[in-house]
Formats: sequence, structure tokens, C-alpha cells
Amino acid sequence: MSLSIRFAGSGGQGTITAGVILARAATLYENQYATLFQNYGAAARGGLASSEVKISPQEIIFPNVVRPDVLVAMSQEAVDAYIEDIEVNGLLIYDKELVKDATPKSESIKKLGIKATQTAIDLGNKVVANIIMLGFLVGVAEVVSKDTIEKAVLEVVPPKHKTINLRALEVGFAFAEKINKL
Amino acid sequence: MSLSIRFAGSGGQGTITAGVILARAATLYENQYATLFQNYGAAARGGLASSEVKISPQEIIFPNVVRPDVLVAMSQEAVDAYIEDIEVNGLLIYDKELVKDATPKSESIKKLGIKATQTAIDLGNKVVANIIMLGFLVGVAEVVSKDTIEKAVLEVVPPKHKTINLRALEVGFAFAEKINKL
Repeated sequence: MSLSIRFAGSGGQGTITAGVILARAATLYENQYATLFQNYGAAARGGLASSEVKISPQEIIFPNVVRPDVLVAMSQEAVDAYIEDIEVNGLLIYDKELVKDATPKSESIKKLGIKATQTAIDLGNKVVANIIMLGFLVGVAEVVSKDTIEKAVLEVVPPKHKTINLRALEVGFAFAEKINKL
Repeated sequence: MSLSIRFAGSGGQGTITAGVILARAATLYENQYATLFQNYGAAARGGLASSEVKISPQEIIFPNVVRPDVLVAMSQEAVDAYIEDIEVNGLLIYDKELVKDATPKSESIKKLGIKATQTAIDLGNKVVANIIMLGFLVGVAEVVSKDTIEKAVLEVVPPKHKTINLRALEVGFAFAEKINKL
């Protein structure tokens, strides 16, 4: 019944923020439960940063995520560290310019790469790459509705950055539209 | 080597924010590692909200907190739910106006109650009660230094609320000074 998503990348890429936004969207704006786990420390040292969200329509008794249904990876290091953790029939979403090799051993894993970081730079700020990824995740996997993720983005990002974050989210939705039409 | 703190209260009391600030203080401004776990959902329904921080000078292999060394409780419900989880020789910090009964079975648990919420109201905003609790925790248990928790508070709270949050933190430190002089 529950769905788990791990966001992973380098410190500063906003993987923790992506997790916070998703968890808040599920709980505040949809009638779901969520847990969020964050690992600090390595990221503060420039290493791997990750967050894990578990979403469920029912209260979550066991919040640990051993095998995420979806891995959202924003660096090669993140893919290398977590690609084999992905659940059978799971999904790998990655930044296809920052990740050169993303080949899970299991053929059951679906892989979708997008140019999140380059597109964020084109929009005017590299830091919204995480929001493009989040929009793409929501568009492809429908973990929460587009309306609710938009509300949660608006609530979490600083007021002066609302416009660029909404644009980033819509770009992510648009990337997903293309995939969904294939 | 590691120290674990559970913040618990009702939704809106800022227990998750307190956890975020402490985890960031330990990792960004001190050379430590931290994990942060948050449980959403019940809180969004007006129920029990909690966050758990584990801090360690070394990388954290097992992030789960079964028995926190410190419980910071901001409601009677939080005390009732978690008081028996506190580690032997652990510490219970609570809002002594919101919590009427805080009696752990083990005599090894030290109890410290402060008027966090009333003091926050006197300062001008009830929502800084969590920061008073955090200042008291740091002052009593020295989980991170006063300097680093101040930096983390300034980084996390909205710019226009910096002054009241710093005052709340100092009030928390002052409550701890009194205890430490006993």
C-alpha cells in the first residue's frame, strides 16, 4: 500500500528539500501519512546527500526504507551507491547529464533520464533542478497530485523564488507528459 | 558515543523545526554527523508530532532511535506516549504548564520542567516555545555549543522573526543557567 522514494545527490542539490516538499504534500494536502528520513553529515562534507520519503494512505508502522520503489538520483555517486537497492519493478529517475552510467542488474527496473540541471540553469537558477525532478516524479509516478505538489512547493520555498520554482515544477510535468505519450 | 533526542508535541508546536535546527547545528557548524527522522500525518490531523535527532562525532550506521537519551515533550500526550522510552539515566524536558503528570517509572530519569509556552507568549509569539525548549536543552545537556545552535536558528527561521527567536533561545539558555547553578 505504501510507496517509498529516495532522493539522492550531492550536498546543495536540494535532495532534502525535495523530500520535505513531497512529505508535506502527501500529508497536509492529501489525506495520507508520510515519514521522512534525512541523513546529514556526509552532505555537509561535500559527499552524498539523501532523503527518504514513505507515503501511505494508512498510518506507517515501519518507516524504514530498505528498498525504495523509486530512486531519484542527481549524481553518478548517488546512482552507484543506491541503484541496486531499488525494489523489483521499481523506477530510477536520474539527471542524464550528471549521470553517465545507470544500469541496474535487474531488467525489471525502469530507467528515465532527464536534463534537470541543464534545464534549471536555462530557467535561471541551477538550484531548482530538484524541483524539476520532483515535477517529473509526480508526473510519471503520480505519487501525489500535481495540485498538491504545487501547494507544497509554494509553502516551502522562499516567497521571492516562487515563480522560478513553479516554472521548474511545470517543466518537470512537461517532461513527464512526453514520456507518458511514448 | 552518539546522543539521541526526541522532540514531541502537537502539530504546530514546532517539534520538527527543533529537530531540523539541531541536526543542522551539529553537522554544518560542528564537525559531527546527524540523522533526522520525522513522522508526518498524525500531526497534520492535530495529533502527536515528533522528530528524532541522533548526533555523533562519527558516521551513523544505525540511525534508528529506540530509546532516546533525551525526550523534549511539549504536551501531556507526548509524555504519555514516550516517557517510558527514555534511556536509563536519560533526561525528560517538558513544558510544565502543558504537562500535568510526568513521572517515569525509572528513578534514573532526570526531569526538568520549564514554562516554555507561557514565556513564549510573554515574548510575543507562542510559536517560539520550541526555541526556548531548544535553548534549554543545549544549556542543560550541551548537545551542541550555544554558538552553533544560534547560527542554526538564524539560518532556519524567516528573516523577519530572527529577533524574537534569538530572544527565545537566550531565555532557554537562562533557564538552564538557573538549573546548572542548583
